[in-house]
Amino acid sequence: MEGHRKEEKTSFVQSLADPGHPVKCSPVIIDNVPLNGPTLNVLMSENFIHQSMSIIVEDAIKKATDVREKVCEWRSPEQLKELLDLELRDGAESESEILQRFKDAIRYSVKTTHPRFFNQLYAGMDPYSMVASFIIEALKPSLYTYEVAPVFTLVEEAVLKKMMELIGWKDGGDGIFNAGGSMSNMYAVNLARYRCCPDIKENGLSAAPHLVMFTSQECHYSISKAAALLGIGTKNVYAIPSDERGKMIPSALEEQILSAKSEGAVPFMVNATAGTTVLGAFDPIDEIADICEKHNLWLHVDACWGGAALVSSKHKHLLKGIHRADSVAWNPHKMLMACLQCSAFMVRDKTSLLQRCHSARASYLFQQDKFYDVSYDTGDKSVQCSRKPDAFKIWLMWKALGSRELEQRVDRALAMARYLAQEIKQREGFRLLMEPEYANICFWYIPPSLRNLPDGPELWGKLHKVAPVIKERMMKKGSMMVGYQPHGEKANFFRMIIISPQVSRQDMDFVLDEIHNLGKDL
Amino acid sequence: MEGHRKEEKTSFVQSLADPGHPVKCSPVIIDNVPLNGPTLNVLMSENFIHQSMSIIVEDAIKKATDVREKVCEWRSPEQLKELLDLELRDGAESESEILQRFKDAIRYSVKTTHPRFFNQLYAGMDPYSMVASFIIEALKPSLYTYEVAPVFTLVEEAVLKKMMELIGWKDGGDGIFNAGGSMSNMYAVNLARYRCCPDIKENGLSAAPHLVMFTSQECHYSISKAAALLGIGTKNVYAIPSDERGKMIPSALEEQILSAKSEGAVPFMVNATAGTTVLGAFDPIDEIADICEKHNLWLHVDACWGGAALVSSKHKHLLKGIHRADSVAWNPHKMLMACLQCSAFMVRDKTSLLQRCHSARASYLFQQDKFYDVSYDTGDKSVQCSRKPDAFKIWLMWKALGSRELEQRVDRALAMARYLAQEIKQREGFRLLMEPEYANICFWYIPPSLRNLPDGPELWGKLHKVAPVIKERMMKKGSMMVGYQPHGEKANFFRMIIISPQVSRQDMDFVLDEIHNLGKDL
Repeated sequence: MEGHRKEEKTSFVQSLADPGHPVKCSPVIIDNVPLNGPTLNVLMSENFIHQSMSIIVEDAIKKATDVREKVCEWRSPEQLKELLDLELRDGAESESEILQRFKDAIRYSVKTTHPRFFNQLYAGMDPYSMVASFIIEALKPSLYTYEVAPVFTLVEEAVLKKMMELIGWKDGGDGIFNAGGSMSNMYAVNLARYRCCPDIKENGLSAAPHLVMFTSQECHYSISKAAALLGIGTKNVYAIPSDERGKMIPSALEEQILSAKSEGAVPFMVNATAGTTVLGAFDPIDEIADICEKHNLWLHVDACWGGAALVSSKHKHLLKGIHRADSVAWNPHKMLMACLQCSAFMVRDKTSLLQRCHSARASYLFQQDKFYDVSYDTGDKSVQCSRKPDAFKIWLMWKALGSRELEQRVDRALAMARYLAQEIKQREGFRLLMEPEYANICFWYIPPSLRNLPDGPELWGKLHKVAPVIKERMMKKGSMMVGYQPHGEKANFFRMIIISPQVSRQDMDFVLDEIHNLGKDL
Repeated sequence: MEGHRKEEKTSFVQSLADPGHPVKCSPVIIDNVPLNGPTLNVLMSENFIHQSMSIIVEDAIKKATDVREKVCEWRSPEQLKELLDLELRDGAESESEILQRFKDAIRYSVKTTHPRFFNQLYAGMDPYSMVASFIIEALKPSLYTYEVAPVFTLVEEAVLKKMMELIGWKDGGDGIFNAGGSMSNMYAVNLARYRCCPDIKENGLSAAPHLVMFTSQECHYSISKAAALLGIGTKNVYAIPSDERGKMIPSALEEQILSAKSEGAVPFMVNATAGTTVLGAFDPIDEIADICEKHNLWLHVDACWGGAALVSSKHKHLLKGIHRADSVAWNPHKMLMACLQCSAFMVRDKTSLLQRCHSARASYLFQQDKFYDVSYDTGDKSVQCSRKPDAFKIWLMWKALGSRELEQRVDRALAMARYLAQEIKQREGFRLLMEPEYANICFWYIPPSLRNLPDGPELWGKLHKVAPVIKERMMKKGSMMVGYQPHGEKANFFRMIIISPQVSRQDMDFVLDEIHNLGKDL
């Protein structure tokens, strides 16, 4: 044993001195393992934790969010594998080696909390939410029963209540936080199917009718992933055309519903998107709700990205009619800046549809002979077992900021998007795809060499290759991160996403200057 | 504006002084919002973060893991709602109010990292893993593309490689970390179905054959949840009888496969469990693999709980034959003590089955014209979009401890389980369900008033009511947490789970003494 112990270089592993465990009694040994006293004493790891925390504060918080620092220090997979010694071995590493690993992991990671990270539908750092997530990590709660997570169970209930109030469900509803918006959308498909054909839960789809669902061509790809996973089939997802702004065309929806019915298919749900991924478009929920009512279809609103507009009296009109939805997915980890992940799924139903659809009634977890009200044991509403208390990350932040500050943040991000769009229209060599309604600003950069080409296939063919090169250069320089993509027939264009109050209009000017600097020779 | 600003009581929100953003230029105002300079300066939140961190270290780490402190401070839902002011309002709260909320949230939460928390299949605190999870929370990475999460993408690959090596897949395989074992099991069902009938992804199940799957009656409830969600139907999950130790009976499996086939159903997969939830039983994988080979069925091993035995040369025989599985689910957040969640799903296939089964090829995320090897963009293997880099939580800990210390921890937990079983057999009033093979110790406590009753319905009827009362008393006292459940025909019994090196044999003695003290008057 001594030989092994010498390899433990840290102070708190194998430490036997613990005030709560007097070890004066005779030693008990089973299978050659001495069992008296603990072999890990967390109290003695305090020094290590303090050292780690100062690295986190300096490198992962302060430096990562400092606009003067790089957004990323790019290394190719091959280079990074050499820099990081990734292999897992038999022996232990020393505490100082481990601290160096922290530093390296932070150094070569992308700083998504940096003011110039505009690459995804999340960005920035809210210190309140971050600290809330540290508390979760330290306490290791899992949400299934009230007895194991009393505080977080009630916090989830309170946040869902507030979000449903903003949706406009006057009588409340039901809901649950999930590991991301894709999962929330998947729940919607399952619930809609369950309401339509409850027997499928038990009997499966092989004897079921030919179910079909509808969503716009601009929707998030999780809708089609859900259809594949749930056995509905991707070809049974009807893609409804959108208008030039990316909004679903209601008349086209109704046409396709009628056409599906005439072919003997059974429509069961419509997904409307509030804030599409690429264009930031809002489907006309009210008009879609009329059609759903008429045809008795479940209406789900994927407001993962656009839901945040509900906190703004100026912008909530974008989701007009959302109170008529049967279910809503809304991710506070996107525009509201809660730490990842924080994704709410909500249902207007108050007849326990969520529970009935997902329950398996595991007797070892959801005992009915408990001494408290077991309606607080919410775990059987989920298809997960262990589930993180993600609602806490938005609850604490909301408490600290209040709805008014959340509203100001959203209003400011959308004003900033308008400013950027104005600048794009004024600058030579930049071309706006369309006026932003939300926080997505889509545009092309046309290098000087292409500016005299007539609008036509040659120009677009060449433009298509510009954004990937500029992206490569910005990654290698580390000055900022902005996404690009092709879209339908459209050649590669940039998509800027504006979220964080860490961002100023100077950053907007910087983005355009930098794209020009990186691409002017192309 | 000034009126609003006065409500912001914290120092870093709305602070305009940021060294990186000189604001001498003329103000830009859009929609009445001034856009010059950031309105959130993370650098200035340092003091708040330090104060929060010391509360976390004192209350959520040191006090929570101190054996002399309570495991929980029980409050009913009604009481707790009064103690915590949960409502979300328009106005902001002060920094000191927020710090008090941290303290309250921690105080009334269950301390799952306490040495006397034996209630679930996870427990204890590993300081390395906890710090790794703090880094994740501070950096806010999401795993879909290499460009956004370079370090964590490679870390995931390295951990999966090591785990697949322990499984015994000499040529490697493929895999992904998921938000929990239920999700990993769900992936297995979907992959098995995809291999069997790839057209279902596109066409759905309504025109598919009558698919059926097999698992033991002791399996985790996520298998039946997966069957419901995926449209297979819970009644198409055949529950195979287990022997008196909770292990699937292979001959019964083969009988049911033949019987299903004779009825025209199409068997496509078998789930074997390595470490069942209640009894900790290991299905005989090798014999099940023979049957799967013979009938060309996908073999999934749910080793979420029992997989940890693979790190132990003494105990890995429990999973003999696991290298023959087509897929394996294994949660390092359980016995290996990584922070929640840390759940790996692995497939032996090397033909991109995982990717083909789940991909949706979103063009805005998985562009093919990137400047690096896009095989590192692993996100399309998942049904999630945002995904946390959970592998980092076990990687860092594994680096710090080495495989040898992980092995010693597992060996010690299982030796401790044997010690507890011995004590139960020796003590009057305790009755062991069966000798433990793993870390689940199942037993009844028989209060003195019932000890003279003959073995029969009256005794078992009365015993059934004992555990819930003792559980209520231990929760209200806060001295420890041990689960109980009925199981099949068996009356409520306790299920102790032993995991953490923070635990000593003194804690085992304490558990039995305490159960007796709490229940001797019943």
